[in-house]
Amino acid sequence: MVVGEFVQKRQLIIVGGGPGGYNAAIRAAQLGQEVTLIEKEELGGVCLNTGCIPSKTLTHAASQYSSMPHLKELGIHTEAVRFEWPAFIEYQKRTVSGLQKGVEALFKANKIEIIKGTATFMSENRIGVDSGHHYEMYQYENAIVATGARPVMPQGISRTEGKIIYAEELRNLKQVPGHVVVCGSDYIAIETAMAFRNLGADVSLICRDDTFGLDESIARELNRVYKKAKIKLFKKAELVEASAGGETVTITLQSEKEKVTLDADVLVLTERYQPNTNELGLEFIKVTMDDEGYIAVNEYGETSVPGIFAAGDCTIGMRLASKAIKQGKVAAERIAGIASAYSLAVVPQVIHSTPPIAAVGLTEKEAREQGYEVKTGQFAMGGNGFASLSGQKEGLAKMIMDAKTDLLLGVHMMGAGAAEMISTGTLALEMAAREEDLSYPVYAHPSLSETWLEAVEQATGKAIHLPPERKKETATS
Amino acid sequence: MVVGEFVQKRQLIIVGGGPGGYNAAIRAAQLGQEVTLIEKEELGGVCLNTGCIPSKTLTHAASQYSSMPHLKELGIHTEAVRFEWPAFIEYQKRTVSGLQKGVEALFKANKIEIIKGTATFMSENRIGVDSGHHYEMYQYENAIVATGARPVMPQGISRTEGKIIYAEELRNLKQVPGHVVVCGSDYIAIETAMAFRNLGADVSLICRDDTFGLDESIARELNRVYKKAKIKLFKKAELVEASAGGETVTITLQSEKEKVTLDADVLVLTERYQPNTNELGLEFIKVTMDDEGYIAVNEYGETSVPGIFAAGDCTIGMRLASKAIKQGKVAAERIAGIASAYSLAVVPQVIHSTPPIAAVGLTEKEAREQGYEVKTGQFAMGGNGFASLSGQKEGLAKMIMDAKTDLLLGVHMMGAGAAEMISTGTLALEMAAREEDLSYPVYAHPSLSETWLEAVEQATGKAIHLPPERKKETATS
Repeated sequence: MVVGEFVQKRQLIIVGGGPGGYNAAIRAAQLGQEVTLIEKEELGGVCLNTGCIPSKTLTHAASQYSSMPHLKELGIHTEAVRFEWPAFIEYQKRTVSGLQKGVEALFKANKIEIIKGTATFMSENRIGVDSGHHYEMYQYENAIVATGARPVMPQGISRTEGKIIYAEELRNLKQVPGHVVVCGSDYIAIETAMAFRNLGADVSLICRDDTFGLDESIARELNRVYKKAKIKLFKKAELVEASAGGETVTITLQSEKEKVTLDADVLVLTERYQPNTNELGLEFIKVTMDDEGYIAVNEYGETSVPGIFAAGDCTIGMRLASKAIKQGKVAAERIAGIASAYSLAVVPQVIHSTPPIAAVGLTEKEAREQGYEVKTGQFAMGGNGFASLSGQKEGLAKMIMDAKTDLLLGVHMMGAGAAEMISTGTLALEMAAREEDLSYPVYAHPSLSETWLEAVEQATGKAIHLPPERKKETATS
Repeated sequence: MVVGEFVQKRQLIIVGGGPGGYNAAIRAAQLGQEVTLIEKEELGGVCLNTGCIPSKTLTHAASQYSSMPHLKELGIHTEAVRFEWPAFIEYQKRTVSGLQKGVEALFKANKIEIIKGTATFMSENRIGVDSGHHYEMYQYENAIVATGARPVMPQGISRTEGKIIYAEELRNLKQVPGHVVVCGSDYIAIETAMAFRNLGADVSLICRDDTFGLDESIARELNRVYKKAKIKLFKKAELVEASAGGETVTITLQSEKEKVTLDADVLVLTERYQPNTNELGLEFIKVTMDDEGYIAVNEYGETSVPGIFAAGDCTIGMRLASKAIKQGKVAAERIAGIASAYSLAVVPQVIHSTPPIAAVGLTEKEAREQGYEVKTGQFAMGGNGFASLSGQKEGLAKMIMDAKTDLLLGVHMMGAGAAEMISTGTLALEMAAREEDLSYPVYAHPSLSETWLEAVEQATGKAIHLPPERKKETATS
């Protein structure tokens, strides 16, 4: 290995090119910083290469495939309908590669230096980069750590190529498996289970928490959707054992009451992660981390060490690209001298299941636990004209409000348009909207957004498209 | 005809069962009024029976049909793909009839009396109803006029069954025509043109105003979409003559420079309407109307005659079901003693073209005309990750802001999710959101809503997914 003779000087060094790192890099460059980004794998990180983008391509394709019967009733005649997994994988690869080229082009246009290699902090203002054949030392003014997290197996379970895998590896499958077992209680588990069910696989879902962290009304609806879709749900269950032998994975799980053994073609594990902070040398420079190695940051993205910031999945708290992006941008802005800050009090969550699920703010239970006197309003998609004409009658919208002040506390939705409409909820919460702010405006007709209006109106027994009796029942239930 | 002997007493009489009338009826019933609704045709009015619902069913089906090549690239293999118009019409009828049964059930549940017949006002508190075989006189405390409007032909053009028709009659066609000529500059013209193009027809569009009342950036994009889709656009053109002979309609139009003659299978006229107020007896009781017969109402839905309210297309101003619904509800609330009012300053507009278009608030031009120092931000759908993975890269989002105060003035969008996301814009305008209110929140990733964030960021040269040069160019253009 060639070791650089001198310590090279850089202004801002970012470690990791995922959404946290690349958004930080571009924002910092926009603000006049000279930016160097160190990445050991591909630009775009887990999100672009193996996470969000590939998984949303899968959920999109699977959801489209599940809409074929609806297309038929619309008058769209087709024959010999089938899902061709290899063609899908090609599309998925093209999509990822197209977006990756886009990020590369943006880096070039913003004059961001990319160094391929593995970084290790040497001191509070020095970092070494091992590029395999080459080792260089850099001195920086500021650094942002955005190294992400990686999935890990539960204790006693061994990852087995193509058989016992992480959700990030689904794109390596050679075909749609006959029986997919998903183990997890997070949004990735929900998306994976429904995507493969949509594609025709038998699906079993092992979850500790069958509310999946969702508002109880949405969780109830999701359980109903699973029943209808014939997804076998093992509730309050833990994976005990899994072993791949030949073509089959044998899985043992312990549910509340019984031990069950399943044979599957593939077992997909979600939810367990570990931060990529253990070989970064952060411990030497005393960056505060929690017991699991997640980095502590404040609302400016600052770590405990002056000049060193962190963003994304390697920091304590939720693992969402949207958090990484926000933290990365704020860190870049702080470094450039802008009085920027972020809050993760209001973070929209979108689950690309069929139908999609989206939520922002408090669940009903959380609101009650926080001492609010809660008022809720709910409206089923089935009562919405646009949902009806477009064959998307599953789901509901639910509003959580403070009964005393009419302040909106949370919005929860399962149904068509949820992913797009949830930003209305985010804005409403950020701007401290009250019931009237949602009921006063004019809503386009016919539109899916009218479900929100009717959910708000239902809270006071005034949803137009609910009969008076139902209104009372739902209001007091 | 049997004439009733006595004048019957009613509390609230509503004339017309379209969206204005039926929403008013249900809201009034919810508030304890005894409601009687007079309708001479079908409950649901133009919106449910011949307008919004059938047309959105058509645009939905046509848009789905146009997505078949995308489904193929996703790996969804199909053969013998074709659009079966009769099957579609069956679906459309089922949808309308299902929704109509829903409204009927709601009327029953809300104990609303329905009288089939034609109403004529006799005095300020009396109305006569001719039910064909029967005539009754009713005395009321309050009345709401919600009789809508009907399409009319331009002077010199004669409606000809199946050949020279209104958009409301498209559902009577026996097949997808070979060549459809649409004449109009409104959203119905846009929707009709693209729907039939999606279904494989040749389409020509004759319009006076090729901005279609849209923001100039969206109009430019729409013109580009038309070019790409091979929709022949005759700009600044007027229909001169049209005659149906045998299978063909011969159409003469005068554009800016030339007179053009076209042969078509069907000519569809949009945009020209006349209020259904001429045989209602309103002139006897001195309800103020404009020269065309549209009723003047204030922000409470009150006409010039105490106790008589009006709602919807029969009132002065825009013709939108969303307006009718709002006016109807407010009128009902006023009648029930609630201090309710509406404003039509912020009304979202949604056009179900492919891609969809939605707007709320001022266009750039309107903002400049109103004296604002305008700041705009714009972002193309092609730069959005979710649009990319879901094959929906056409379009853009544009934000109009006041440069002095950062106040949001308008949101304009063409692209996937526009119809669902526009309510975020409505809320933002109603709550007087500023640039920061839109740039501060966390947006789900990957999501179509991120186009809004990047459009806002572009205004200050900070869109992440735009190269620095492009940013400058667009910002100063």
